[in-house]
Amino acid sequence: MKKKVVGILLFPDVEVLDFAGPFEVFSRVRTVPGPASRISEDSAPFQVLTVGIEPGELVATGGLRVVADVAMDDAPPIDILVVPGGFGTRPLLDNERVLTWIKERAEVAELVTSVCTGALLFAKIGLLRGRQATTHQGALDQLAKMDPTITVHGDRRFVDDGIITSGGVAAGVDMAFHVVEKYCGVDVADETSRYIEYPRP
Amino acid sequence: MKKKVVGILLFPDVEVLDFAGPFEVFSRVRTVPGPASRISEDSAPFQVLTVGIEPGELVATGGLRVVADVAMDDAPPIDILVVPGGFGTRPLLDNERVLTWIKERAEVAELVTSVCTGALLFAKIGLLRGRQATTHQGALDQLAKMDPTITVHGDRRFVDDGIITSGGVAAGVDMAFHVVEKYCGVDVADETSRYIEYPRP
Repeated sequence: MKKKVVGILLFPDVEVLDFAGPFEVFSRVRTVPGPASRISEDSAPFQVLTVGIEPGELVATGGLRVVADVAMDDAPPIDILVVPGGFGTRPLLDNERVLTWIKERAEVAELVTSVCTGALLFAKIGLLRGRQATTHQGALDQLAKMDPTITVHGDRRFVDDGIITSGGVAAGVDMAFHVVEKYCGVDVADETSRYIEYPRP
Repeated sequence: MKKKVVGILLFPDVEVLDFAGPFEVFSRVRTVPGPASRISEDSAPFQVLTVGIEPGELVATGGLRVVADVAMDDAPPIDILVVPGGFGTRPLLDNERVLTWIKERAEVAELVTSVCTGALLFAKIGLLRGRQATTHQGALDQLAKMDPTITVHGDRRFVDDGIITSGGVAAGVDMAFHVVEKYCGVDVADETSRYIEYPRP
């Protein structure tokens, strides 16, 4: 089976768990259960790629230094787009280059997902028009104001309405498992959650 | 209040969520509640530092590229030592330089903690002798064999017996919140868990 490419956007002041949670989930899924299968990529259904705005190192919240695999303009086709949140999304709301990249990639991706305030970037480019969505608890009002056609849910870990948005930070882990279920079924998702000892709510 | 230095050891093939979970928790704690306090470090009780074996970039599980803040030999005094796990712990069991560093740092740290198979490194240097401890579900037998004086608990998210060990991967997040409770009280820990929308089990 051809692996699905998961492209996770990274930017300065991206919230660590927003990207590291989905990264952990997607990169540890195996269709063969148990720890041994995790040593190789043989039964991995996903290939996870981090995508930076620029090449080179960037600094996430709390000061974590990360190097993206590839810069935005050089990224290969992405099947599953993941846009995390964090304080770093605020300046991106005025960054036409990044917004255009997200819009173009979202149009051709199989699945488009956000974590936390990543949803604000989607709202800004009209991706959530007329849809149900969610975001970090502290940004629910902002999301509703940015696009009043969005039905904002403040009480869900994630909302799947064609485009998948998740609540704050750790909720991105639940969103990722939801995507794993879609592609690989509930048994594979549950086995991975047991492997990483994450209690899905 | 002088910030407590949390030193998280990083090494090739460290499991992403093993270090990123505690990093997220410790770096987002604020004694002043709400999102605004997270913009600055003013009310942050912890300063989180990543410590590499060597200077420069390293590759975690799944291929995540990370740059440690400081190399092992140049690390400042560490108050709270965090040793994560992952497949990368296996070669470290024969790495005298790393084992000696952990032993020396553990002797002078206020608090010594592990996530997942990080506990194997502690067992190897005798840190868990006669103590209760836990590790990743797939390494419980190995931990018991490495040091039969350890009482191994396979049914707990973390075990605090002077040295704090946690279960696999995501259990490190619960361990980090336990440490936050010790230093800052349950209200600050709970507020941080609400901020990062992590449902503590």
